[in-house]
Amino acid sequence: MMRAAGAAREGFVQKIEAIVREERLPIVLAALGEHGYGGITMTQVRGHGRQRGVTEQWRGNEYRVDFLPKIKIEMIVADNVADSVINTICENARTGAVGDGKIWATPVTRVVRVRTGEVGEAAI
Amino acid sequence: MMRAAGAAREGFVQKIEAIVREERLPIVLAALGEHGYGGITMTQVRGHGRQRGVTEQWRGNEYRVDFLPKIKIEMIVADNVADSVINTICENARTGAVGDGKIWATPVTRVVRVRTGEVGEAAI
Amino acid sequence: MMRAAGAAREGFVQKIEAIVREERLPIVLAALGEHGYGGITMTQVRGHGRQRGVTEQWRGNEYRVDFLPKIKIEMIVADNVADSVINTICENARTGAVGDGKIWATPVTRVVRVRTGEVGEAAI
Repeated sequence: MMRAAGAAREGFVQKIEAIVREERLPIVLAALGEHGYGGITMTQVRGHGRQRGVTEQWRGNEYRVDFLPKIKIEMIVADNVADSVINTICENARTGAVGDGKIWATPVTRVVRVRTGEVGEAAI
Repeated sequence: MMRAAGAAREGFVQKIEAIVREERLPIVLAALGEHGYGGITMTQVRGHGRQRGVTEQWRGNEYRVDFLPKIKIEMIVADNVADSVINTICENARTGAVGDGKIWATPVTRVVRVRTGEVGEAAI
Repeated sequence: MMRAAGAAREGFVQKIEAIVREERLPIVLAALGEHGYGGITMTQVRGHGRQRGVTEQWRGNEYRVDFLPKIKIEMIVADNVADSVINTICENARTGAVGDGKIWATPVTRVVRVRTGEVGEAAI
């Protein structure tokens, strides 16, 4: 089933992941919605970039670095809109201060919509 | 060490990710277990597909779309069982209603079992 | 913008993911810090490998297998340090007992630092 005609070929579907500030999430989501991009999964994560020096407690352990609450966004998108999705997230997640986060893309080889069993671009 | 003979070559190991309804999780896990598929990681996430219109509060912010609690399943599997794993999740996660979720696969280039240091297919 | 010179080419940037024991996290983070590796995202997850037999409640449902709290680490790294990062996590996450977790790598095709818009290796 997964390899049927119409199945997503590698490089034709991308997973976009972004780590963003919690306070920018509503703006990012509104901008994605205005562009018509749906299918978003969000996870509460802890992150830190290269900034250091703050000591914090997390789950009973003390860390030398500061792990700040962030939101991870995940989206499965067609290759031809990946740049637009990345740019929309980037422009709306930015404050200009350290800790604005990161966005990356990875190739997806197969995608299935559970409700219908549709595969490939029809599933996104 | 990671590039030794036996290391996973790209395309021979897949990461399967699925966003499913919380209430379908026990059924999906039971079905995976019956097929002998182990090594499952689960994360509580929030997701929405293309359904819109409900206003909801999450972490103090109000969203125009409905972000519903979902479970993300992750599994690292050999390529030759990836279709079977995807189909098992798909068939058991399905209710037929909007919001049933999505499943996708991405290539894994290296995999290591921490306890033994085994790499590649021996690690999954 | 994403395809400009300097953009990450596939295979030149990797996403490293690791599922580790909560109690090993401080040691793993300290070791990564000593090597100068930053940019870490952490998520609370539930996982199980192939060990079975314990019955547990999670979110109101009962499971035949034991889903133990674990921490997922994610890092975006240049290809030439990926093995070193994997080995550092592996050696410091290991207790020798079942449930030590797994580490894997997936290819990243594009990466952007939100604050500056830098892409590719400059963004990691």
